[in-house]
Amino acid sequence: MKKPLQIVLDTSIFVNPDSRYLFGKTPKEALNNFLDSIAGKKSIFCYIPPSVYEELMKFLEKAPNHNKMILINKKPPSSYESSIPAMMVYEFIEEMRLRINKGLRIAEKYSRKLINQPIISKNNREKEEAVIKSLRHEYRTALREGVIDSKEDFDLILLAKELDAKLATIDHGLVKWAQKLGINCISAEELKEIVGGNI
Amino acid sequence: MKKPLQIVLDTSIFVNPDSRYLFGKTPKEALNNFLDSIAGKKSIFCYIPPSVYEELMKFLEKAPNHNKMILINKKPPSSYESSIPAMMVYEFIEEMRLRINKGLRIAEKYSRKLINQPIISKNNREKEEAVIKSLRHEYRTALREGVIDSKEDFDLILLAKELDAKLATIDHGLVKWAQKLGINCISAEELKEIVGGNI
Repeated sequence: MKKPLQIVLDTSIFVNPDSRYLFGKTPKEALNNFLDSIAGKKSIFCYIPPSVYEELMKFLEKAPNHNKMILINKKPPSSYESSIPAMMVYEFIEEMRLRINKGLRIAEKYSRKLINQPIISKNNREKEEAVIKSLRHEYRTALREGVIDSKEDFDLILLAKELDAKLATIDHGLVKWAQKLGINCISAEELKEIVGGNI
Repeated sequence: MKKPLQIVLDTSIFVNPDSRYLFGKTPKEALNNFLDSIAGKKSIFCYIPPSVYEELMKFLEKAPNHNKMILINKKPPSSYESSIPAMMVYEFIEEMRLRINKGLRIAEKYSRKLINQPIISKNNREKEEAVIKSLRHEYRTALREGVIDSKEDFDLILLAKELDAKLATIDHGLVKWAQKLGINCISAEELKEIVGGNI
């Protein structure tokens, strides 16, 4: 008998176009095809924390049928019983400190630019929105990419750690922090290979 | 015999004018007076993590004499052996998420204001610097006040936890996060009372 394989699934696998295409055209089709591919596979156990399940459902118009969704265990991590090495918290604090400083530099850059080269006349809402959109994009990229920035991300890491499961994700931030805790992360391609490559 | 009392000292006590005045006029005088007050007190043990000691020394022109400084134990926390409840990390991630959003709102506010009301003509460096200074102040207050934002802060919390010591600080962020771990925080006034009120 094959050793049972436990896999914690991140939303990104089925939602991000970079990985979704491996399983289907839309998030809904990707999830449905994935569920079909694990049906009947007795040595593969898939998990998703309830918070991440909620997140995933927002990308579908309709949840898959219960008889399919039951193939994924909606298990939350035991947050009140778990602990994290202090060293990881040090690293997290330092990472946030650097990024917060980066965010301020971006805010300063936009302000200085606009002080010296006010680019629009009054009532030019369109250009104003374009500047704000560009500011938002730059700021969010600097502060959020590559860090754990939500409860959902941390749920995935804690659950994978608790179950000693593989974490299937294409989110670089998740991979980086999960690896600090010794979690085995797998890509969408590896996940597809594992579930049989028969999608 | 009085029960021995262990106290971890934060820089803020001797540096922040709101508490320093209780011990002396300058950081140097405050620290020296404090050291004098604990000399010979066999039931009071004071600690400071090396990182925080370095920080404190930056505020003095010259370190106190060795025979005085030896009264404070420069003990680092056992960072590689300690762990933190996962729930605290959840709270920290959520707090940072809210603050990062707040930082973006501030950056947007300044940008929109400057787009619509470019307040200065070219070459008016003075006004430009005033705007940037105000942006920095608002951003830093929003993102840093009330959170653990440095390795030094976390060293204080870990050390107080490890030693089951009281933490003497007037930093609200430190108090808030230390209390989540059950650490007894004392104010500058309480510290002065404890060391004898004889400064």
